Amino acid sequence: MNIGDIAEGGVTSPRGFRAGAVYCGIKASNPGRDDMALVVSDQPSVGAAVFTTNRVKAAPVRVSQAHLRSPLTRAVLLNSGNANACTGVDGVTRTKAVVAAVARAVGVARRQVLVCSTGRIGVPLPVEKMTARAAELVGALSVEGGHQAATAIMTSDTFAKQCVVEVQSPAGSYRVGGMAKGAGMIDPNMATMLCVLTTDAMVGKRLLQETLHRVVERSFNRITVDGDMSTNDTVIALANGAAGLPAIEAAGEAAEVFAEALHAVCLHLAHQIVFDGEGVSKFVEVQVRGAASFQAARRAAEAVANSTLVKCAWAGGDPNWGRIMDALGYSGVRFREEQVDIYYDGLIAARCGTATATPVEKLREVMAKRRFAITIDLHQGPAFYAVYTTDLTADYVRLNLSE
Amino acid sequence: MNIGDIAEGGVTSPRGFRAGAVYCGIKASNPGRDDMALVVSDQPSVGAAVFTTNRVKAAPVRVSQAHLRSPLTRAVLLNSGNANACTGVDGVTRTKAVVAAVARAVGVARRQVLVCSTGRIGVPLPVEKMTARAAELVGALSVEGGHQAATAIMTSDTFAKQCVVEVQSPAGSYRVGGMAKGAGMIDPNMATMLCVLTTDAMVGKRLLQETLHRVVERSFNRITVDGDMSTNDTVIALANGAAGLPAIEAAGEAAEVFAEALHAVCLHLAHQIVFDGEGVSKFVEVQVRGAASFQAARRAAEAVANSTLVKCAWAGGDPNWGRIMDALGYSGVRFREEQVDIYYDGLIAARCGTATATPVEKLREVMAKRRFAITIDLHQGPAFYAVYTTDLTADYVRLNLSE
Repeated sequence: MNIGDIAEGGVTSPRGFRAGAVYCGIKASNPGRDDMALVVSDQPSVGAAVFTTNRVKAAPVRVSQAHLRSPLTRAVLLNSGNANACTGVDGVTRTKAVVAAVARAVGVARRQVLVCSTGRIGVPLPVEKMTARAAELVGALSVEGGHQAATAIMTSDTFAKQCVVEVQSPAGSYRVGGMAKGAGMIDPNMATMLCVLTTDAMVGKRLLQETLHRVVERSFNRITVDGDMSTNDTVIALANGAAGLPAIEAAGEAAEVFAEALHAVCLHLAHQIVFDGEGVSKFVEVQVRGAASFQAARRAAEAVANSTLVKCAWAGGDPNWGRIMDALGYSGVRFREEQVDIYYDGLIAARCGTATATPVEKLREVMAKRRFAITIDLHQGPAFYAVYTTDLTADYVRLNLSE
Repeated sequence: MNIGDIAEGGVTSPRGFRAGAVYCGIKASNPGRDDMALVVSDQPSVGAAVFTTNRVKAAPVRVSQAHLRSPLTRAVLLNSGNANACTGVDGVTRTKAVVAAVARAVGVARRQVLVCSTGRIGVPLPVEKMTARAAELVGALSVEGGHQAATAIMTSDTFAKQCVVEVQSPAGSYRVGGMAKGAGMIDPNMATMLCVLTTDAMVGKRLLQETLHRVVERSFNRITVDGDMSTNDTVIALANGAAGLPAIEAAGEAAEVFAEALHAVCLHLAHQIVFDGEGVSKFVEVQVRGAASFQAARRAAEAVANSTLVKCAWAGGDPNWGRIMDALGYSGVRFREEQVDIYYDGLIAARCGTATATPVEKLREVMAKRRFAITIDLHQGPAFYAVYTTDLTADYVRLNLSE
């Protein structure tokens, strides 16, 4: 079996999926821009999802969690412009009303529809505006509609995020496609991040759920822009078997290959989200090696990746490894500063916790790049962790002064 | 006994202290600006100190920790422009050399001198420049020198931070004075924050240490600007008994009054540090009440105070309480979103986790103020915590692009 390269495409690249979007005026400040999208499988399909770990969960998250208990999932409804979070029981009622209208228009049971929202918190969802366009939304569905849907879910994103991979197996080929939106509030625990993944492989519901969890942990949960997690984060996967291949139900080679393909799509989308983070000028991979444990490696990497002072130095192109040492020092991880080495794209900036002879101009050259890696060796043990993050720019602040 | 109001003054307001500063060229970019300061007690005095909890500790912190074991402390040496952190054994050797030269010039034992540094990490301390001016520094000492010393320790601070309070007791009066520097990197665990406190009360060394710990916990450890903690944070207190009053050695009313006076000075200096945070436009008190425990209240308050999205909204004057709910949700604290109330200076913005009828214009009026309070009631129990913080502005980022 063979996994192809990441290619252009999206949620409608796998067979048997259609998508589309309409404008219904959820956010007054974006007149005419599509703000409600739908992805539908034309045949019975199974669904899996991973949701925000934030204790405050938006109404669509609660409704989707309930609907996920259904053995089949046929559609995903998404809207931008309103998060429907912190809206209480009324928020759930409103989401259910919109889902009911769309399910009726598609011709499936309500519980076969999952739902995602992104936008401002605490504002009532405009149910009438949305239900009034349900039939039009279903009419807009097409096998070329993936891009339109990916565009409709954008908020402060500057480009639509989507891709596809194809897997060749002895019995034939199948595809895994996906779309995502991100930008602000991205953290290892997924923040205001929505993602829909589709595949025409036939995958058992339980295996799909287990695989999605594992893959999200190694992709979306490894990215951080501002350390904030949102109330609405959702990653949904639909598998409809339209490729006509044997079902993947249990652990084994076929399941591993599927997981790899799903991971390739998720990692690509995750990186696109980081690149498109609000006001981002640099994409930085923070690697911690030589940690005593996986948890220690993770905590150290995240402390560095989320330090506002470290991120400001990256924005300024200043190879200020002292701020990295400082962040490691308050991370809560045990290490001896006399043993820490820090590299910028392989160039050693600090050895044994102090400055090296590497010319600062060389380090500045690394930091002038749009993408570089910081590697920290704690020399405490065998554990490794990497997180993908960005710099912090004045533009980020300007973009977040209000919403 | 009676504690007066906070008044103008500083480390030389209590009797028997002199201070001064000189320029020795530690930081080339600030030609002519004093960068080395000294505070000296003219008679035997005791010292206490609280240091950074960062695992990475600067050389001056290590030297001061050792010298604090001496029963007497006569002087505090401070420099700006170089943190002497992440400089290994050589850094300690350099700090000791400067301390030795200054101790000799003052005429006290080396171990009676404590030392603080602030500035860039990872750069060797310019020992010769500093020792060459040791005699001149001692010559500059005067009973009016408090302001000069407070100015010399400034880095990105825009004003010198100092004050004094006077305590009236039946036996006579004594004073507690102090100076501090702060600005960037201020967090509950004290960040690049230096503070020297002086009193002409006679206080036992052990009581002074216990009191200082308690007071720092309720003042400097309650402020946060950017969530980063520094390698050099130090708060030092000297008590010389020059007021000629009976010694305060054990718990009791006199000790409590002294603690209150010390707290008043520390809280005032802490607030000044927040007001002068880099690029700060607002001073915000985040209060959490109704928490199940003190730790929960603290964690919730700090999550809100350190959220970049919450802080950006403050900078923009946007009463976006949804971002506060979001930060509470990922704080790790247990609560039910249906029970959370959020107030802006007493105006209720969210009740039971959802929006209220309070007009958004009223909330905007609160946020237009330079200083306001956010109160969060979790309705889970009796615990309360307050933290003092700031907004996050584009200016903050610009100031931290490099150092």
